[in-house]
Amino acid sequence: MDNSEIKRILKSVKTGTMTVNSALDSLKHLPYEDIGFARIDHHRTLRQGIPEVIFAKDKKLKDIIAIADSMLKKNSKLLITKTTKDIYKDISLLCKQYNKKVRFYERSGVITVAEAQKKTGMVVVLCAGTSDVPVAEETLVTASFLGSKAEIISDVGVAGLHRLIDAEKIFTRARVLVVIAGMEGALPSVVGGMTDKPIIAVPTSAGYGTSLGGLTALFAMLNSCVPGIAVMNIDNGFGAGVLAHRINTL
Amino acid sequence: MDNSEIKRILKSVKTGTMTVNSALDSLKHLPYEDIGFARIDHHRTLRQGIPEVIFAKDKKLKDIIAIADSMLKKNSKLLITKTTKDIYKDISLLCKQYNKKVRFYERSGVITVAEAQKKTGMVVVLCAGTSDVPVAEETLVTASFLGSKAEIISDVGVAGLHRLIDAEKIFTRARVLVVIAGMEGALPSVVGGMTDKPIIAVPTSAGYGTSLGGLTALFAMLNSCVPGIAVMNIDNGFGAGVLAHRINTL
Amino acid sequence: MDNSEIKRILKSVKTGTMTVNSALDSLKHLPYEDIGFARIDHHRTLRQGIPEVIFAKDKKLKDIIAIADSMLKKNSKLLITKTTKDIYKDISLLCKQYNKKVRFYERSGVITVAEAQKKTGMVVVLCAGTSDVPVAEETLVTASFLGSKAEIISDVGVAGLHRLIDAEKIFTRARVLVVIAGMEGALPSVVGGMTDKPIIAVPTSAGYGTSLGGLTALFAMLNSCVPGIAVMNIDNGFGAGVLAHRINTL
Amino acid sequence: MDNSEIKRILKSVKTGTMTVNSALDSLKHLPYEDIGFARIDHHRTLRQGIPEVIFAKDKKLKDIIAIADSMLKKNSKLLITKTTKDIYKDISLLCKQYNKKVRFYERSGVITVAEAQKKTGMVVVLCAGTSDVPVAEETLVTASFLGSKAEIISDVGVAGLHRLIDAEKIFTRARVLVVIAGMEGALPSVVGGMTDKPIIAVPTSAGYGTSLGGLTALFAMLNSCVPGIAVMNIDNGFGAGVLAHRINTL
Amino acid sequence: MDNSEIKRILKSVKTGTMTVNSALDSLKHLPYEDIGFARIDHHRTLRQGIPEVIFAKDKKLKDIIAIADSMLKKNSKLLITKTTKDIYKDISLLCKQYNKKVRFYERSGVITVAEAQKKTGMVVVLCAGTSDVPVAEETLVTASFLGSKAEIISDVGVAGLHRLIDAEKIFTRARVLVVIAGMEGALPSVVGGMTDKPIIAVPTSAGYGTSLGGLTALFAMLNSCVPGIAVMNIDNGFGAGVLAHRINTL
Amino acid sequence: MDNSEIKRILKSVKTGTMTVNSALDSLKHLPYEDIGFARIDHHRTLRQGIPEVIFAKDKKLKDIIAIADSMLKKNSKLLITKTTKDIYKDISLLCKQYNKKVRFYERSGVITVAEAQKKTGMVVVLCAGTSDVPVAEETLVTASFLGSKAEIISDVGVAGLHRLIDAEKIFTRARVLVVIAGMEGALPSVVGGMTDKPIIAVPTSAGYGTSLGGLTALFAMLNSCVPGIAVMNIDNGFGAGVLAHRINTL
Amino acid sequence: MDNSEIKRILKSVKTGTMTVNSALDSLKHLPYEDIGFARIDHHRTLRQGIPEVIFAKDKKLKDIIAIADSMLKKNSKLLITKTTKDIYKDISLLCKQYNKKVRFYERSGVITVAEAQKKTGMVVVLCAGTSDVPVAEETLVTASFLGSKAEIISDVGVAGLHRLIDAEKIFTRARVLVVIAGMEGALPSVVGGMTDKPIIAVPTSAGYGTSLGGLTALFAMLNSCVPGIAVMNIDNGFGAGVLAHRINTL
Amino acid sequence: MDNSEIKRILKSVKTGTMTVNSALDSLKHLPYEDIGFARIDHHRTLRQGIPEVIFAKDKKLKDIIAIADSMLKKNSKLLITKTTKDIYKDISLLCKQYNKKVRFYERSGVITVAEAQKKTGMVVVLCAGTSDVPVAEETLVTASFLGSKAEIISDVGVAGLHRLIDAEKIFTRARVLVVIAGMEGALPSVVGGMTDKPIIAVPTSAGYGTSLGGLTALFAMLNSCVPGIAVMNIDNGFGAGVLAHRINTL
Repeated sequence: MDNSEIKRILKSVKTGTMTVNSALDSLKHLPYEDIGFARIDHHRTLRQGIPEVIFAKDKKLKDIIAIADSMLKKNSKLLITKTTKDIYKDISLLCKQYNKKVRFYERSGVITVAEAQKKTGMVVVLCAGTSDVPVAEETLVTASFLGSKAEIISDVGVAGLHRLIDAEKIFTRARVLVVIAGMEGALPSVVGGMTDKPIIAVPTSAGYGTSLGGLTALFAMLNSCVPGIAVMNIDNGFGAGVLAHRINTL
Repeated sequence: MDNSEIKRILKSVKTGTMTVNSALDSLKHLPYEDIGFARIDHHRTLRQGIPEVIFAKDKKLKDIIAIADSMLKKNSKLLITKTTKDIYKDISLLCKQYNKKVRFYERSGVITVAEAQKKTGMVVVLCAGTSDVPVAEETLVTASFLGSKAEIISDVGVAGLHRLIDAEKIFTRARVLVVIAGMEGALPSVVGGMTDKPIIAVPTSAGYGTSLGGLTALFAMLNSCVPGIAVMNIDNGFGAGVLAHRINTL
Repeated sequence: MDNSEIKRILKSVKTGTMTVNSALDSLKHLPYEDIGFARIDHHRTLRQGIPEVIFAKDKKLKDIIAIADSMLKKNSKLLITKTTKDIYKDISLLCKQYNKKVRFYERSGVITVAEAQKKTGMVVVLCAGTSDVPVAEETLVTASFLGSKAEIISDVGVAGLHRLIDAEKIFTRARVLVVIAGMEGALPSVVGGMTDKPIIAVPTSAGYGTSLGGLTALFAMLNSCVPGIAVMNIDNGFGAGVLAHRINTL
Repeated sequence: MDNSEIKRILKSVKTGTMTVNSALDSLKHLPYEDIGFARIDHHRTLRQGIPEVIFAKDKKLKDIIAIADSMLKKNSKLLITKTTKDIYKDISLLCKQYNKKVRFYERSGVITVAEAQKKTGMVVVLCAGTSDVPVAEETLVTASFLGSKAEIISDVGVAGLHRLIDAEKIFTRARVLVVIAGMEGALPSVVGGMTDKPIIAVPTSAGYGTSLGGLTALFAMLNSCVPGIAVMNIDNGFGAGVLAHRINTL
Repeated sequence: MDNSEIKRILKSVKTGTMTVNSALDSLKHLPYEDIGFARIDHHRTLRQGIPEVIFAKDKKLKDIIAIADSMLKKNSKLLITKTTKDIYKDISLLCKQYNKKVRFYERSGVITVAEAQKKTGMVVVLCAGTSDVPVAEETLVTASFLGSKAEIISDVGVAGLHRLIDAEKIFTRARVLVVIAGMEGALPSVVGGMTDKPIIAVPTSAGYGTSLGGLTALFAMLNSCVPGIAVMNIDNGFGAGVLAHRINTL
Repeated sequence: MDNSEIKRILKSVKTGTMTVNSALDSLKHLPYEDIGFARIDHHRTLRQGIPEVIFAKDKKLKDIIAIADSMLKKNSKLLITKTTKDIYKDISLLCKQYNKKVRFYERSGVITVAEAQKKTGMVVVLCAGTSDVPVAEETLVTASFLGSKAEIISDVGVAGLHRLIDAEKIFTRARVLVVIAGMEGALPSVVGGMTDKPIIAVPTSAGYGTSLGGLTALFAMLNSCVPGIAVMNIDNGFGAGVLAHRINTL
Repeated sequence: MDNSEIKRILKSVKTGTMTVNSALDSLKHLPYEDIGFARIDHHRTLRQGIPEVIFAKDKKLKDIIAIADSMLKKNSKLLITKTTKDIYKDISLLCKQYNKKVRFYERSGVITVAEAQKKTGMVVVLCAGTSDVPVAEETLVTASFLGSKAEIISDVGVAGLHRLIDAEKIFTRARVLVVIAGMEGALPSVVGGMTDKPIIAVPTSAGYGTSLGGLTALFAMLNSCVPGIAVMNIDNGFGAGVLAHRINTL
Repeated sequence: MDNSEIKRILKSVKTGTMTVNSALDSLKHLPYEDIGFARIDHHRTLRQGIPEVIFAKDKKLKDIIAIADSMLKKNSKLLITKTTKDIYKDISLLCKQYNKKVRFYERSGVITVAEAQKKTGMVVVLCAGTSDVPVAEETLVTASFLGSKAEIISDVGVAGLHRLIDAEKIFTRARVLVVIAGMEGALPSVVGGMTDKPIIAVPTSAGYGTSLGGLTALFAMLNSCVPGIAVMNIDNGFGAGVLAHRINTL
């Protein structure tokens, strides 16, 4: 439920094509819907510009289905992150009931239900190594789901600068850059030295030993000698996609 | 030295008002100037959109003065962060030689040398407690120095939500929000629930014991339940100002 | 074995309805019962106001059964925390032998054996997200088992303040609040700004990356800018239930 | 400004002894007062049961004085924590202007301005070693300032259990216990085994090496094998005083 | 191979009951035996007073068997720690070949091959909770294997001091105490206040959340306010058994 | 593709035995080959002296096969680290297609495809315990694959100095030493006191409790009282092999 | 006040040379003396074998003097650790009043007041580097104060094994070894491989960067591959002296 | 005292120009000289290829002077690291007595006493920022003192890649590279992608907040995606100089 739908309801009331009572009915789920263990925030789009999204990792399957069911009743779009193939199967069955098209992105475990929409601007996602691709895909799908044009340039880590320099032609076309890296997390600094675009850095948990599950990349990015690089939580491709979309559509 | 100056030089050459040799002289410092212990990157504005800035904290006074001197020779603007009153005094004397107006921001320790310029857009800096004001000032001065309109709303921590709700009217005028907090670092999450603007969060080292010098606020911000909040290093008001300016002027 | 049972024994001796020898027999397990690998503290209620409770997580199944067996012989009540469905099955069989009614709380893994009792006061458990519900249930069941009225308000995280503001009407009815949150752990601070009740905060391990298994939420809560919030160990819903009950029944 | 004062104002309006305009004047500072770098929350007592308190550690002297000045204009009471002798001198001068009696607690660095009031209940503060006394004093003064009777029992660490067992007679008179310890932080567990009162534990930074500035005591307290012990931030005697007062006056 | 065996060999040579060549053969494995991936230190008893012991945790099954095989050829005794039931099965088969009696301690996973021997002194192992029993058993078996009398007193945690005070009569009979605890690790401090015996403290990994896998108990023990308590690595019951034996047999 | 192959191509062009077009074809993969999720750096040997290597740990099986396939098409050699038996099976099948001999090192999980070559110099790998052998093998195989003579001396930990002193005769033949140890990581310091060769230290994750997954050994090595010991990431036998080879072939 | 003094008192009562009342007077300080902020445990020697000792680091000068004064009234001996020259001056004046001889150990900051006594056994303190000498001195003075013969062998770090091997002749004369080292903390392991004596290891804070204030040495010692080494807190020479004395006098 | 001096002595004995007794005198200090608190290792050069060096940071001034005095008596060279101007003054006076030329490097605090010598090979020290210059100077002076040609290229951080690419011409002349950086520590990775030389990386403590005193740079360097980079302790320019010299002179 987004701004345009609400406007449509209000116009219908104004023009008399909808009774006040049925409009009330449509709007009453606005604050949130209480389904016992969860309160679903159907009008989050109004407030935050993006709909409520299901983060699947810490949730039980039946809870995910219940929340998705409540959302699909009221919304045309749905995004679920950090899922597995098993969750996808059940969501897929649910979507059949609502006659909605669902898509599963296997590397990142993202599930989307979305209608065709016009994409604007350009978010470029730079990805240091092949191990970082799942996080990059999460960013790409999120930004795209929200309405941004988006593109991945993968495997441009600092060990082979010429690959990155070749990519420069592409990423100068971006309005905002998301730079994703694990291990020593050096890519955002090097990209930062080559551009005047806003950069969002995402550390990944790729690596072993002193990579400390991504903390090393995170801290490296926070300490970049290039000013103006902002950092997301480890493996948080979704959050980067949201912020990139917001900046891209300013 | 920014884009317009370089264009001016090139036009002067084209129109014959400047000889090729004297133009060469003006441009030869473009790559960087080697002053022994430092290589000054005079054309950083061309590449990154912002000039090279002096971070004073880990540098010796005489090195700061030498770098500032080299910069003032080539540029009309200068920004020095994390300084002290003693550094300000010496920079002040130096600026007299170049007949430049210098300003010292005491709470944050920022020094600026800048000419009047037109400011655009709007960066709003929200600040949780009075202990966080120095970092907020660093952000404000940086964004403003780079050409953005900017404003601080201070002491709107989550312990008194009504102060924050009052501030909402103001921060809806912003194109980008910078939210600064120490201790538990909760303010970005609460602000994030009230807006659809891009948010840059800056943790500060205010607090004691388990505030861990700002790590607690940092980690809290990275884990925000509101998606799309990006985080800077602890006390890095400068970096937040740079990124806010870039987003604000997209 | 609680105060009233001991008084009953002593009165029976006084009135002659029980011989000194049989009273001695009943009381001799008071200090503790040594069952080899464990010393069961049957009279803990006398000293600490709550009976000894079995923490199942680090114990072997056969040890849990042996301790439960020893307890059920002397007590009418039993509480086991952090169990699994398998443990429940065996405890269930054991309870049949003692003809006791047992209940299993699946989300939290708590097992209770208890008789009907009058509940007093009001403990309200506020829970930030659906991933925190298991911990909240552990608190609720514990406080209720000990004799307190208790209620959960779930999914009132700070990303949607209106949900929390709606809940305010309910939690003003409480004598003590337990506030449970993972990720950035901001909910206790925000609730703390809205109430003058004692608040017990419980961080949960919900989250990923820099949530550090709940350490981030823990440290955030310890650093709350709202004074007077006390904090439990990560995921320690049981401890929060005990303390809430003690405060509630002052 | 607390509830009774506001009631008095409203009654005066009702009975006509105060004009609406002058009542308005008295109440208009209710939300907060904006003094530039700070927004002072004069009606915090109404919401949270305790007045706004000045935490001096991270603030500049002139800011502390400005906030204290604003508060003394509206309130009869004032509490400032983590101060130094120098701050006390300036606050002392300020209080002379307002003809208020000020008191400085040297071990803890607490400053109070308060009128005589009736104290209720009983908060007992147990303190493990002589190095923990400053934090204990902060708790005592805070609880007392807010209206609770309070008492310290110092130097009852677990190395000499007989000292603690002697103290038991005293602390059974308490409604709530605050237990303060540095180093290994074992005292709350041992006290917890001897009582059924609510316990608030405060770790201190006393110790060296692996005491990790109090983190060891903090973690030990969070892991107490005695259930129902809640923990404050390191050295946070003030917070413990607030919570103890709230519980004590339930 | 210990001192007495070597003396016997040398005496046999002296009295002529053994040829120089066959004595040489017996002694040649003294320095160590190289079996490719390992160099087995058969004469460690001579140097360090205890034989080489197999730590099974990080080794492959076939390597454990190969080392055990090499040892059983030269020694009458064998100790393997941190094993599983599967390892025990294979070691059991190997011992049959050498016609040696083997014993498996299931809680701790220790395997011993030993002949009857006279035990001396007294090592008392105090154990805070039932979850700590596996580590206590490892200590007991190790000290006993090396020749010390040893005894466990389990479940005497500080939550029920009376259990510990009862145990005092027993542990005053000890020459050295080993005190084992997880969670907050307070037991060594409390025991330390009751005795003048040497105390070896062993933290265990029992607990969750901020127990940090035993680091909290470790740091608490290192910070004991009772002087003279030495600490072993987390869960290192074996090391404690070795040191207790050395002190016990001084 | 290494220097000699490129020279051969260029000579063929010079002598006319190869057309410019077919030479172009051969060289065009020089920069890198884009296979979608990865950009394979075929000419890394030219730049860094060693070919691109596949780190299998964070990659999906089908990605590993795709990258290996691309490499085998252009190179005669291939090195894959941190693999499993399953990966080996599929790589083995792939190599059959290319008619290449593949070898699997089971302890370390390294896979090599290599032609016979002359080895030079001498790298000696010293290994503290049998648990460290997998990392030592990774170093040995890497150095050998790159063209260095290499040898392992295993199980020479500091608990039995005589084993190490015996090994001294061997390691004085080395041009460079790699010293591998887990637990307390003391071996590099002791070896460092006995030699004037360059030493590369590699900490391993062998140990438990406070070994902190190898961090303890790492930090110990970084703090060696013997100057001039450089340290690799935990378990990074491959990196040590690369550096040892570079130093060995200077 | 130790066992022999109490026996003397009791014998005097028995033989009539002391009245019951005056004996009572002498004994009444036995439990402890309450001097307000501290409870002095005059009979600690009876319980723990060592007298109460003043740890000066976290205490105010006037508190140290007050405690020392209370102790000197009842005891003939006094030990104060972690002092400064300033504290020594004041204690020196105090001792003059009691006509007691005081001694200050400048490197370690230990102050002792003691009478001539016969020393027994032998504690040898091995010290890795000259920076560790202050901690070694604290151990030596403590063990000696308590009645043990004690000796330091300094600067025998593992970088020069021959120095350690020379020292071996001396330390085989010990009943117990204390091994002190900072930086990588390797000395206890190497010594442990050369002896069958009990070893107490003490990490020091000597070093920089990743020495982490002594945590690296501490963790290394806890992970020693030589079994049976127990570890004290960082820089805790006093505790090591106490434990060494206890073991030495078994 | 190095190999050539010893050979000279032995030859003098052989040729009769030195008596056996006076040769004995010259050699008797070979093992080490015991000066009480220190054992000076005069023949370290023989064993480790570099002389014993004084690390001044944790030592008292009078101890430094005593050790230096003992060394100057036996050696013609002396290196002291991490000193201050005050130490330099006293060493300067001492050197006058021995008629030796001393030099003080102010940025790094290194003191050298050395004779003219022929330098060989080439060590290039790359330095990311001006704040890292002190550590770079320590490396340069150490390598040079030991006999290597050495050169610094400063301020070539990754924020301005063109500065680094210019420097490439210079560092290809090196036999070994030392790369020094603080903050995010990215420079070694980027340099590593441009060269086939051995690289020694040195993290510095430059930075603030999450730079964690250099741990972030350290961990980033250990996790470099470029294989074969070895890392030193934070700020350990001396160690890097030693290792670089050893590699350079192979």
